[in-house]
Amino acid sequence: MTELRIFPIVGIPEVRPGDDLASLLCAGVADQGEVLLTGDIVVITHKVVSKQEGRIVSIPTEAVYRQLVEDEAARIVRRRGDLVIAQTRHGFVCANAAVDRSNVEAGSAILLPIDPDRSAHRLRTLMERATGTSLGVIITDTFGRPWRRGLVDVAIGISGLPSVVDLKGTTDTHGNDLHVTEVAAVDEIAAAADLVMGKATGVPAAVVRGLSLSGNGRIADLIRPPEEDLFR
Amino acid sequence: MTELRIFPIVGIPEVRPGDDLASLLCAGVADQGEVLLTGDIVVITHKVVSKQEGRIVSIPTEAVYRQLVEDEAARIVRRRGDLVIAQTRHGFVCANAAVDRSNVEAGSAILLPIDPDRSAHRLRTLMERATGTSLGVIITDTFGRPWRRGLVDVAIGISGLPSVVDLKGTTDTHGNDLHVTEVAAVDEIAAAADLVMGKATGVPAAVVRGLSLSGNGRIADLIRPPEEDLFR
Repeated sequence: MTELRIFPIVGIPEVRPGDDLASLLCAGVADQGEVLLTGDIVVITHKVVSKQEGRIVSIPTEAVYRQLVEDEAARIVRRRGDLVIAQTRHGFVCANAAVDRSNVEAGSAILLPIDPDRSAHRLRTLMERATGTSLGVIITDTFGRPWRRGLVDVAIGISGLPSVVDLKGTTDTHGNDLHVTEVAAVDEIAAAADLVMGKATGVPAAVVRGLSLSGNGRIADLIRPPEEDLFR
Repeated sequence: MTELRIFPIVGIPEVRPGDDLASLLCAGVADQGEVLLTGDIVVITHKVVSKQEGRIVSIPTEAVYRQLVEDEAARIVRRRGDLVIAQTRHGFVCANAAVDRSNVEAGSAILLPIDPDRSAHRLRTLMERATGTSLGVIITDTFGRPWRRGLVDVAIGISGLPSVVDLKGTTDTHGNDLHVTEVAAVDEIAAAADLVMGKATGVPAAVVRGLSLSGNGRIADLIRPPEEDLFR
């Protein structure tokens, strides 16, 4: 029986460019009397990763912020008043091209990591080396959705995990083929971890324990190809 | 520190119209040596709820299925070939107006409950009475998303929970107002529970323990109003 345990990694200090984030995360786990185990998935909000990578820009005025959103957008999907839904260079479609002014000093904004999979891979390698385990890592951001109110966390970078869990070729309990069933497990894990992280609490990471998932997926494979996209 | 535990409710037999689903769920929990505790959130796939409510229809041919999708749709949002993205009478936007042919006998389809909040409320009341606890209940379905591949579970009916968790008026750790931050916690919980339920395993329910959420929300409040909807 699969049973999940999800616990936050607390006590991470404000992260600065060049900090050893992997060590901070491992120390945070240890400070709670826990150890990372093989199979654990470490989920981290991109904000601390972006800060560690120096992806912070000054936005002295609203006009500068607006221009930054335009610059970060590879494609504008919808625009209404000040609201811009845009596709980033990574392929993510979200508000303001993911340029974020929360959880950063006033007058600054945080950009996404340039290559979130590489960021995840680097963190995974360092944490695996420090702990002698085999891990998964998910870097998250908080996105709105069409049609439904409210924000949810999703995966924007992964390492050691499948991009989707493909049930093709399996059958349900009634023998029906599940021929088009791909589960976005990494997004479900990102959402689950957010439940213990929160937007206002300064907890930037969590551990999800109990899943047996491994793989070598790329976040790019979670992006719907343009020819399948009915909402361009 | 918030820590979550999520465990599946196993051993639920194939549900038939009129079955006492609340008792089946409580018995499933007890069979695992667990008891429901106040604050637990019981997450249930709508399929067993719909079966219990007799929301199963015969679809002898593909044409009958196609017509059923049209009939269930309150509004067609997009159409390409056989793929129909439609809004249901409840307001949910999803593939095939949520008419589902998996996890049901071949030649049949499952419809959504007519009033999923009421279904959730009834189950909650019965389970609370049986266990002397105060619970939350979420009924889920599995939806695709624009722009991102893969399916995730979302809430389609709730009881004893807030529709969104509103962080308005709170600040992040840098003192920035979180003035438009509403978290769709019930969708994050639905996604989290799916990680232990799965599409192919016949596990229709799970318990999420460790959150302190209560409220009196309606799923209708999670639907984005048309005037805010940029993807109609």
